[in-house]
Amino acid sequence: MRFSQQIAFLLELDKLKNIYRRTLVLHENRAENDAEHSYHLAIMACILAEHSKEKVDVLHVMKMVLIHDVVEIDAGDTYFYDTVGNQDKTEREQKAADRIFAILPEDQAKEYRSLWNEFEARITPESKFANALDRIQPILLNFQKGGISWKTHEIHAEQVRRNLSMIHGGSDRIEQLAQDIIQTAIEQGMLLNDKLN
Amino acid sequence: MRFSQQIAFLLELDKLKNIYRRTLVLHENRAENDAEHSYHLAIMACILAEHSKEKVDVLHVMKMVLIHDVVEIDAGDTYFYDTVGNQDKTEREQKAADRIFAILPEDQAKEYRSLWNEFEARITPESKFANALDRIQPILLNFQKGGISWKTHEIHAEQVRRNLSMIHGGSDRIEQLAQDIIQTAIEQGMLLNDKLN
Repeated sequence: MRFSQQIAFLLELDKLKNIYRRTLVLHENRAENDAEHSYHLAIMACILAEHSKEKVDVLHVMKMVLIHDVVEIDAGDTYFYDTVGNQDKTEREQKAADRIFAILPEDQAKEYRSLWNEFEARITPESKFANALDRIQPILLNFQKGGISWKTHEIHAEQVRRNLSMIHGGSDRIEQLAQDIIQTAIEQGMLLNDKLN
Repeated sequence: MRFSQQIAFLLELDKLKNIYRRTLVLHENRAENDAEHSYHLAIMACILAEHSKEKVDVLHVMKMVLIHDVVEIDAGDTYFYDTVGNQDKTEREQKAADRIFAILPEDQAKEYRSLWNEFEARITPESKFANALDRIQPILLNFQKGGISWKTHEIHAEQVRRNLSMIHGGSDRIEQLAQDIIQTAIEQGMLLNDKLN
């Protein structure tokens, strides 16, 4: 029973492979999906852990990034710059978390739901670092890809800068990278630089 | 310098999103890629760790599964049942490991190359468990998908059974699952059951 609940949860997560984000993968002309994004965050967590502002338990960060987007299985991906979609995002995602983590055996359901809550709350060192990774990864890919996604959605530098406070909480070094990227992206016309109304 | 080497490595890994395997994802009609596969193994490592035959350091297993397929960036994915492709697989993969891990700063290059060697050698408890996950994941997906990939490539039960000894080293519970799947897959005509020449 316990084992089959675990397998059912793991099969449910296969759906992350079909939730497409606004970011493109670097070497194909297609959107990245949540499984690929979460893969990237997990390996970033190992490789970049030394740049976390506060000392972190790397395993804890990795578990968190691996499940941080599972709610999108029900709630869908809400583009960071989509004001309307972000209005009822919290409610949709809470309902999704209720359903999805409950597939696991009770102790694990509690553990992983709590990891997801922790990621969302951004209070612990681990969650601050995990959120910094979650914000820098699409910025890094968008920039490497010549800003196609930003240009398509007519994103302003000001909008990308809203990520900075979140990254700031997790890592000075990564925040510096984000700032450098935004500056270069403006200079190269990848991001709009006039004031938003 | 150190930070930019780390970022270069992380960008290199984006290529895993374009290396397609023989397994199909469950909810689209397309092949799974290495990033998605590795994502799945990492979350399996957390959720199923209690079923490892020997006690494992979960972080160690997770790091290992996250990088176990990076050599396919240069060497390509060799289908487990492809006899010809498997002949020079080792040489191609060693060369790839030499190049790819060297992108990292020296200490991390050493650490991750050593993790990859450990995975390949299948001697430590962590690598045995990681290999069991690597073998059960496509079996699980193929079975859930009605055996399409097995039918397309006319795979015999005997060939899938060759995975069992590898899974056996890592987990009795997972080996049992693989055996149950193979049995049912034969009964339902997903796998051929006559002797191979």
